[in-house]
Amino acid sequence: MGKKIKEIEGGVCAPQGFRAGAISCGIKNPAVERLDLALIYSDFPTVGAAVYTQNQVRAAPVQLSSSYLKNADPRAIIVNSGNANACTGHQGMIHARAMAAGASKALGLKQREIQVCSTGIIGVPLPIERIEPRMADLVASLGTDGEPPARAIMTSDTRPKSVAVSVKIDGIKIRIGAIAKGAGMINPHMATMLCFVTTDAAVSKAEITSATREAVEHSFNRISVDGDMSTNDTVIVMANGQAGNRVVTRGGIGSAEFRRALNHVMLTLAKKIVSDGERVTKLVEVQVRGAASALDAERVARAVSNSKLVKCSWNGNDPNWGRVIHAIGYSGARIKEEMVDIYFGGVLAAQNGLAAKTDLESLSAAVREPEFTVGIDLNQGTGNYTIYSTDLSPEYVEFNRQEYAINRQTK
Amino acid sequence: MGKKIKEIEGGVCAPQGFRAGAISCGIKNPAVERLDLALIYSDFPTVGAAVYTQNQVRAAPVQLSSSYLKNADPRAIIVNSGNANACTGHQGMIHARAMAAGASKALGLKQREIQVCSTGIIGVPLPIERIEPRMADLVASLGTDGEPPARAIMTSDTRPKSVAVSVKIDGIKIRIGAIAKGAGMINPHMATMLCFVTTDAAVSKAEITSATREAVEHSFNRISVDGDMSTNDTVIVMANGQAGNRVVTRGGIGSAEFRRALNHVMLTLAKKIVSDGERVTKLVEVQVRGAASALDAERVARAVSNSKLVKCSWNGNDPNWGRVIHAIGYSGARIKEEMVDIYFGGVLAAQNGLAAKTDLESLSAAVREPEFTVGIDLNQGTGNYTIYSTDLSPEYVEFNRQEYAINRQTK
Repeated sequence: MGKKIKEIEGGVCAPQGFRAGAISCGIKNPAVERLDLALIYSDFPTVGAAVYTQNQVRAAPVQLSSSYLKNADPRAIIVNSGNANACTGHQGMIHARAMAAGASKALGLKQREIQVCSTGIIGVPLPIERIEPRMADLVASLGTDGEPPARAIMTSDTRPKSVAVSVKIDGIKIRIGAIAKGAGMINPHMATMLCFVTTDAAVSKAEITSATREAVEHSFNRISVDGDMSTNDTVIVMANGQAGNRVVTRGGIGSAEFRRALNHVMLTLAKKIVSDGERVTKLVEVQVRGAASALDAERVARAVSNSKLVKCSWNGNDPNWGRVIHAIGYSGARIKEEMVDIYFGGVLAAQNGLAAKTDLESLSAAVREPEFTVGIDLNQGTGNYTIYSTDLSPEYVEFNRQEYAINRQTK
Repeated sequence: MGKKIKEIEGGVCAPQGFRAGAISCGIKNPAVERLDLALIYSDFPTVGAAVYTQNQVRAAPVQLSSSYLKNADPRAIIVNSGNANACTGHQGMIHARAMAAGASKALGLKQREIQVCSTGIIGVPLPIERIEPRMADLVASLGTDGEPPARAIMTSDTRPKSVAVSVKIDGIKIRIGAIAKGAGMINPHMATMLCFVTTDAAVSKAEITSATREAVEHSFNRISVDGDMSTNDTVIVMANGQAGNRVVTRGGIGSAEFRRALNHVMLTLAKKIVSDGERVTKLVEVQVRGAASALDAERVARAVSNSKLVKCSWNGNDPNWGRVIHAIGYSGARIKEEMVDIYFGGVLAAQNGLAAKTDLESLSAAVREPEFTVGIDLNQGTGNYTIYSTDLSPEYVEFNRQEYAINRQTK
């Protein structure tokens, strides 16, 4: 249980029996050569699980993929960047189905064994005519390098995000690999977040479904300051059993180890997404403890993480506990002002709701770090919750105020 | 009912029997000469009502004033800027009481007839030693000019905010005057909002209480994107009956006219607060209609008004309906994507959840205006709600990222 998780190379291709590739279709702009269509494929049958956006406005590929997953385990994921195929109506569904049909035909699979994802511009028809004729090229690109697909799914991300680990389950080495894209992180309920996980562990359907939900809850849901998701958010996990371990079942042998590794993979990518957020200069871990309940702790963590003025103060290296206690006060959690303690980087800023006798220089030094914690102890109970947050920079606003024609993206 | 409301000069001093004044005490910085202590006084008994912050963290003057109001009608309001006397514990209560005691003694009133307000730096002891000795000077400043108190309550406001109106009630002319301060408007649950209203109308206690709540709900609560309030937010209304009208009772003769005038006064000040928000360049009225319920309409209006990315797009003159429909999708309201229509300045941007066939130039022209509406029709029912919102500018973040020592204010 406590053993160190070993990180390995290869991303989604690290687990045995998985291949991946990517090509350039000019989806956003035919004149620009960049990878924008990726495929992740298992040579063997899988069991799969997924978590899709809870936004009531769901992109066509999300609607299609979730219906496919109800009837089949996925063998492949086809994903494009440059166009989200969201708010595209009936035509959008036709295009998403065309992507699934093209991939399934090229791979010799059933259509429902394909998961389809899109990220990019919304409200604009997907240029399916640039994608459909390229299916043979896409399949031909399949290989064991996890980097091209990680690059192909980027939108405003500044770098590809992937991770792979190996752990032993019941004495057998298994591998988990993953890629993700994010950005737009300061208001992540509007940033499309995609994460694709492959593993050669043998896992039961019930276990993979439950483990996937748990890992998402402890990673991607903790970087989302509102718990809301964009039109296209998708996390897909495929397990093909090629490691040869005894099937991990829910609560059975190896379940704890498998979940610990899966949690590690998703949390690692979640943190990479946060730190690569648009024009982010600070990675701030908001740790709430001593709440009357876990829900109260979450309310406080979200109110503090989501406050524009708190985020501005972090950008300005300002250990402003006043703005923090304001946000605590309106969070909806049960609190007693005179019981609240606030720390920056472990340094006490406010005690019992009052300015602590800490010198300002120690506090300022704590928040000048590129990564620091904001600790909040409500001293009301045992509820706790942590959110991975960021500052709000003038450059973020500059970036996101760009005009329509230039930057009409999902985030 | 439909008659035009006449605006008049004089602010809080426009109604008969009210005087006001302000002095400079150097509360924030003794070296800087600026008005920072104000007094509003009725020469005659009043009936009064107030709405205080719903934040669980309540500044000492809010705690004191709300307890006084339960036992007496206010004859005077003493208010300082430069220090919020918030998060100041037991000492803060002693200081707030000292302000009330000083004012009541100087005016010959009971202590509970004083309302005490503060706005400014939080978590720092109020320099009561600069305030207490100045009570005679403060009373000596009382006059009929509404401008000095409007200036004295400003913090990051760039201009004083006041309004006065006269209307006829049952054939008798009555006057309502008011001053307010706001700023920090983009995240208004953290900006201290103060509003003080005087009227020479004769109004019953039940009527003034109910009318005040109604007016706040339709004005200041519609500029607060979360419905949350800061530690110090306060709206106080005093009516001294000097106009000589028959007492307006709840639902009685003149109630509709009185409420219409009071609503007008508060909405006027609310809009002034919005347009004077820190580094605001756009005043945007988010009008939601066709919701399944009024609550659903409010949810959508608040989600759209509060979205950082939507606000950034407004700043960039970007008619980005995609970001708007995202926010609608996660608002929690019941919606059907394929039923949603979105307008910018009355120009159709999206119809039935899809891009409308409107030319981009017409849409861009609409959002280039310094004031425009965002119309959202959910086509689900008859619920509607309007919020007065703003853009989010790089300059706002620049302003609010200033370091602790410089800018440790309530907002």
